[in-house]
Amino acid sequence: MAENKALSKVKSQKVLGGYVEKYIHTSSTLGGLKASFNLFIPHLADGEKANVLMFLSGLTCTEENFITKAGAIPHAAEHKIFLLCPDTSPRGAGCPEEDENWDFGTGAGFYVNATNQRYSKFYNMYDYVNKELIALVNDNFPTSGKISVFGHSMGGHGALISYLKNPGLYATASAYAPICNPCLCPWGEKCFGGFLDSKEEWAAYDATELVNAMKKEGKDMTANILIDQGSADGFLEKKQLLPENLIEACKGTSITLNYRLADGYDHSYYFIQTFIKDHIEHHVNAMK
Amino acid sequence: MAENKALSKVKSQKVLGGYVEKYIHTSSTLGGLKASFNLFIPHLADGEKANVLMFLSGLTCTEENFITKAGAIPHAAEHKIFLLCPDTSPRGAGCPEEDENWDFGTGAGFYVNATNQRYSKFYNMYDYVNKELIALVNDNFPTSGKISVFGHSMGGHGALISYLKNPGLYATASAYAPICNPCLCPWGEKCFGGFLDSKEEWAAYDATELVNAMKKEGKDMTANILIDQGSADGFLEKKQLLPENLIEACKGTSITLNYRLADGYDHSYYFIQTFIKDHIEHHVNAMK
Repeated sequence: MAENKALSKVKSQKVLGGYVEKYIHTSSTLGGLKASFNLFIPHLADGEKANVLMFLSGLTCTEENFITKAGAIPHAAEHKIFLLCPDTSPRGAGCPEEDENWDFGTGAGFYVNATNQRYSKFYNMYDYVNKELIALVNDNFPTSGKISVFGHSMGGHGALISYLKNPGLYATASAYAPICNPCLCPWGEKCFGGFLDSKEEWAAYDATELVNAMKKEGKDMTANILIDQGSADGFLEKKQLLPENLIEACKGTSITLNYRLADGYDHSYYFIQTFIKDHIEHHVNAMK
Repeated sequence: MAENKALSKVKSQKVLGGYVEKYIHTSSTLGGLKASFNLFIPHLADGEKANVLMFLSGLTCTEENFITKAGAIPHAAEHKIFLLCPDTSPRGAGCPEEDENWDFGTGAGFYVNATNQRYSKFYNMYDYVNKELIALVNDNFPTSGKISVFGHSMGGHGALISYLKNPGLYATASAYAPICNPCLCPWGEKCFGGFLDSKEEWAAYDATELVNAMKKEGKDMTANILIDQGSADGFLEKKQLLPENLIEACKGTSITLNYRLADGYDHSYYFIQTFIKDHIEHHVNAMK
């Protein structure tokens, strides 16, 4: 465990025998801005290592929402895994229009690397979560090297593309109410349109289009993805999530998409906590 | 289940097979102000009734903190109990100095009935939680009639005095890091001094003094109270909590005080969630 002097511990709070710790560091991927994350560190014996499960949050969230509200810690403590909770965007970048709407910019980095030069210095959440942050955590904590990823809504989109675009990096992916086909929904159109220079770049950050492209190229991928979706989620009706498109895309591939429509649940952390045990067990099993 | 037209449902969110519902009503005890509470309603069969466990929150909290952050719902769902989460003070009373400090007034009702005429129309949280709110919930939901109470910090104080002052009403009490002897700590002195006309009234709202008075009067009470306290809780060191005084008072009585000092835990909801299973089981067993 190398000591990284760039990583400052802001807070350490004991919980269920482990600790939730908040760190801040200067992120090169995010243009030199300060970035914060929370990490649940399970109780480990001397020399013991643990797997890492990263959760990507949704629009408007920070590194706080999941760790405080999802009910995940009892299960992470039981299975002795790290829970890694990054923020959802750079903060204080000062880019145009970043603070005008809740669904673009601050709190809404959409897990892409911006190519539009108005955003490209700072808005690189794709590289931040998949490269910089994981390397930082592996360098500074007793991790096993095994990682898995899940997320909610915009972060569900982030988890799915992170998994599909990085074969071998993550053990599996799961998602709660993910934005499955952002190229075709208002949230995706807004963020892709703002962050990316050309419409041709969109599909590379879209889970449904990634699977479709794979099929077109005659490639396949063996995978087992868990998705939970609440039937009373207003964003489902508003066609922001489009799980049906991802389900259709996965047909004829080796991706087993375990899609569960849960009667009466909405888009909130109450929905997330209802199925948290299943999701954590899904990842724990995949990391075995 | 009588329909109370004064009780408005603001929100209903499904969680773990039950619902967290937020209600607002006009409170006569709080001078006609609107008051909000959250209620977890477990999944019940037709005609089935459930016990009620009320949680009183600490300084600065609202009806939201416990229900979102304590990790209580999985256990309440398992044991099929209601979780009742009131606010910590009247809101918008317009009384002098109520918004000048975080530890007096708004968010800091201290579970007393004010006698100082500057506050006495509105600041009656003692009667609100012990009388008005419980009657309202019993009138409007399929409750069994069995109730129990717990709380945190200022709310731990509230839970202890509510239990001690109302023999037979609550099955038991438990508390996280409660203010055990408010007559002798800065928080208590400030709130009692502000809300109550005379210093002679203070002891009637102080758990340690209530037990001392009971002993003096030759009375006794059979009880089993659970208190968890984190050893890294800064307010313990600052002598705001004074559990040692309550422990001393309970000696020679029939009150079994199960006081547990938990190594390394602070005053936060991470501490609360660490021991939530024990607390809920303590109440479930007492309500059997």
